[in-house]
Amino acid sequence: MKTISENACFGGTQGVYSHTSKVCNCEMTFAVFLPEEARDGPVPVLWYLSGLTCTHENAMTKAGAQGWAAEHGIAVVFPDTSPRGEDVADDEAYDLGKGAGFYVNATQDPWAPHFQMWSYIADELPALIGANFEIDMERQAITGHSMGGHGALTLAMNLPGRFASVSAFAPITNPAASDWGRKQLSAYLGDDETVWARHDATMMMEKTDFDGPVLIDQGASDQFLDLLTPEALSHAMATKRQNGIFRMQPGYDHSYFFVSTFMEDHVAFHADALWAK
Amino acid sequence: MKTISENACFGGTQGVYSHTSKVCNCEMTFAVFLPEEARDGPVPVLWYLSGLTCTHENAMTKAGAQGWAAEHGIAVVFPDTSPRGEDVADDEAYDLGKGAGFYVNATQDPWAPHFQMWSYIADELPALIGANFEIDMERQAITGHSMGGHGALTLAMNLPGRFASVSAFAPITNPAASDWGRKQLSAYLGDDETVWARHDATMMMEKTDFDGPVLIDQGASDQFLDLLTPEALSHAMATKRQNGIFRMQPGYDHSYFFVSTFMEDHVAFHADALWAK
Repeated sequence: MKTISENACFGGTQGVYSHTSKVCNCEMTFAVFLPEEARDGPVPVLWYLSGLTCTHENAMTKAGAQGWAAEHGIAVVFPDTSPRGEDVADDEAYDLGKGAGFYVNATQDPWAPHFQMWSYIADELPALIGANFEIDMERQAITGHSMGGHGALTLAMNLPGRFASVSAFAPITNPAASDWGRKQLSAYLGDDETVWARHDATMMMEKTDFDGPVLIDQGASDQFLDLLTPEALSHAMATKRQNGIFRMQPGYDHSYFFVSTFMEDHVAFHADALWAK
Repeated sequence: MKTISENACFGGTQGVYSHTSKVCNCEMTFAVFLPEEARDGPVPVLWYLSGLTCTHENAMTKAGAQGWAAEHGIAVVFPDTSPRGEDVADDEAYDLGKGAGFYVNATQDPWAPHFQMWSYIADELPALIGANFEIDMERQAITGHSMGGHGALTLAMNLPGRFASVSAFAPITNPAASDWGRKQLSAYLGDDETVWARHDATMMMEKTDFDGPVLIDQGASDQFLDLLTPEALSHAMATKRQNGIFRMQPGYDHSYFFVSTFMEDHVAFHADALWAK
């Protein structure tokens, strides 16, 4: 693991690191915010999964998470959204290939050799984080924005017991029924839609729900509402009597101005669940 | 004035606008955050002047000011740092020309036709803001980062009565004695150093001080300490018994991770002065 940068931030440290990922078969970059309390021992951690076109950097610089994480004494990990490098397959579209890993393990060419973001986020990166940072891997929570909200929800429901809580900002809720999803799941996983189901938050919610609290924020003026279909997840949560809160926020769009506005609530929500563990 | 974008943000609106500047003789872009309270009438305003290489956008997306401004019911204006456009003179160096206006009115060629940032920030933009936004121009405060801290301090001291309070993050304190200053003041204003004096915060402080509170934050691990010379301003403030606070922050560098960490304090500091007016 290489240290790319470390900056003092809200009494703690905002670091950027890289390492050779075995599952993605390339060099990967990620960011970790450690609060001051991590100098004295392991602290809980909140994973933040980013959306289409993002790297580790967007949320690290624009989501305003560090101040609230510092207040609650928890770490935040910001992974990248896809494998990177010249020999990694890509597509001209912004929503396929690099920057658009969709948090699945690709089984189809040309994606399979590198696009293993499910295993990267579920297994490889947590092992690296646990071994190299003062983070208590028994206290994890997860959130994300847009494609990252999809990732957070599907990881949380597929890994019961792993995360104390899950939240999302404007998540892609039902990719198997959206143009943000059908194209990518088909490209990465092939045309057998039965294997898509575990990567669809609404379908997962209908089947298994989540053993912990859920918080969803969605801007009512989001320019991508037709692709995000918040009503699908909202319906599934209510039908399953899921312990959770679904908030429609009038006037807000899909930007980081929306994410940063509600970050305080999300970090406090996760801190409650993490410290109760 | 043209509206480029408006996003809901912390209950208010983060807008980006452009207009034809008469003094800079080019199209200029700026950003304004209006809190929810501006829907009911004029609110106080905090000016945020940015540093070298920045546009209106850097602080708008990375400084974390909007949440605290919303909490205190004040607007924030983020101007650009220089004139822009193809026919505007530039230099290969990052610290001269575009992105490096230094908040002075250039008298020397090739800069004089466009580089009139002093008049732009002191006169033209305030008139535009006052005419087009629900902002109370009787309640203004100013802050800035690095070159923008220099701008904030020199504007505040040269325009007595204009600003209720002034603060700065890692300001260039003594440009007449620094490589961040001598080169630019010479290029823009010529070699007569007597005309530089009003654009040097330390020299201004030694002469006139400021009729209101001053707050300075400086990171002790700033990579540009030799160019910022915080000791010059600190000495001048103490010598003049300036009403103010000078804080040296251990471990912090020159980045927005530093700025965002202390933004809450700066906005609260200005809000106190603005609401007391």
